Amino acid sequence: MMLSIEDMKMRVAKYAANMVESDQVIGVGSGSTSMLFLRFLAERIQRREIRNISLVPTSSEVEYYSTLLKIEKYIVQPWQVDHIDVAVDGADEVDPRKNLIKGGGGALTGEKIVDYNAREFIVIVDETKLVEKLGSRVPVPVEVVSRYWRLVKDRIERELGGECLLRVLEKGKRGPLVTDNGNYLLDWKIVLDEDPEKIEVILKSIPGVVECGIFSSRHVSRVVVCNNDGEIMELK
Amino acid sequence: MMLSIEDMKMRVAKYAANMVESDQVIGVGSGSTSMLFLRFLAERIQRREIRNISLVPTSSEVEYYSTLLKIEKYIVQPWQVDHIDVAVDGADEVDPRKNLIKGGGGALTGEKIVDYNAREFIVIVDETKLVEKLGSRVPVPVEVVSRYWRLVKDRIERELGGECLLRVLEKGKRGPLVTDNGNYLLDWKIVLDEDPEKIEVILKSIPGVVECGIFSSRHVSRVVVCNNDGEIMELK
Repeated sequence: MMLSIEDMKMRVAKYAANMVESDQVIGVGSGSTSMLFLRFLAERIQRREIRNISLVPTSSEVEYYSTLLKIEKYIVQPWQVDHIDVAVDGADEVDPRKNLIKGGGGALTGEKIVDYNAREFIVIVDETKLVEKLGSRVPVPVEVVSRYWRLVKDRIERELGGECLLRVLEKGKRGPLVTDNGNYLLDWKIVLDEDPEKIEVILKSIPGVVECGIFSSRHVSRVVVCNNDGEIMELK
Repeated sequence: MMLSIEDMKMRVAKYAANMVESDQVIGVGSGSTSMLFLRFLAERIQRREIRNISLVPTSSEVEYYSTLLKIEKYIVQPWQVDHIDVAVDGADEVDPRKNLIKGGGGALTGEKIVDYNAREFIVIVDETKLVEKLGSRVPVPVEVVSRYWRLVKDRIERELGGECLLRVLEKGKRGPLVTDNGNYLLDWKIVLDEDPEKIEVILKSIPGVVECGIFSSRHVSRVVVCNNDGEIMELK
């Protein structure tokens, strides 16, 4: 069997949706795999398999998609909860030690805040997301206070190397992308040879950096992967 | 002689404005002392004592005040410059080792980015701002991504102690204050016994924290103080 990427995403999303229990506060990730998770979760809610669920969104994408799935009444804002039981979220790259790059969909700040504050943070990916070194295929997104983007870009390139590009759109909204939080994004092209957690801390400490797309393994509880045979595995 | 606080601010602001030279890129701080600095700078510009000056604002306060002083054409945005020669800024508290608390006026993020990126960062204060320990008189402002303020508040209180209050206005705009960057502010009541730089790093590393009002001495070039005899001194 050779599943498509879409099919692998579907399987791992469904697997995660089946792990959710009644009475939980769930952090809902952003991106295509997380939207599949939300869809399967909505089906379980509508079939009344699970009750009294609260969904904490990591982005406006989750909020919008919840209206299409007619489960918007289960959405609660982050300031309305005093804990998050479990967060389920995708990733753009996962290294063998469970460090992640996230933020291709522009939601890294909301994702990091919700995922890091959850009691359990479960990553769901198809096997094409597994890499030996972070940065192999995708850049590291860095959310920055918009008017200071150039000072941050110059500092990252000067102190850490690589190349930082302002994320600019050509359709939908032309010019710099604006995040849910009103900020800009830099895409930092770099292969991370050093400990990703160390780079995460250095990036965050730069004035003007709101958050970065490196999620270090320390905050990751489980990484659940679907391979192209349709098998669900877990990273050790 | 017993100068008023206002008079002390005036003297130190004038002293700093006289240090500026032609052809410099100047970071202009926010707050009442910085506005006096800007006023004296405007007088020097209008008298043509200094020429070819670029002013990098740390907040919308600076931009607005520049229009009242009719020097708005000297304002450049942070992304238009490749360096900042000198930043001049006030502070809410200064400890004997030149660590600062800033952000009473809500501009800490812009201030920190501009001040830390300047080749020289000069702090101008009246002597009432000098304290033995940071946090003695004012709280530490912490700028946070607005919808996540409660997760950040809970984490700071749980991990670092003290009390964090959302900064709320009762007039002008009622409800939570919104910063120039669209974020909220927490005011963290705590006396800093430990090394302020360590606390600065810990605060910034918390997901959802955009920036904090602790400015550590490592980034401060000079602290210029006016005492109530009208003398200008410099912290050693």
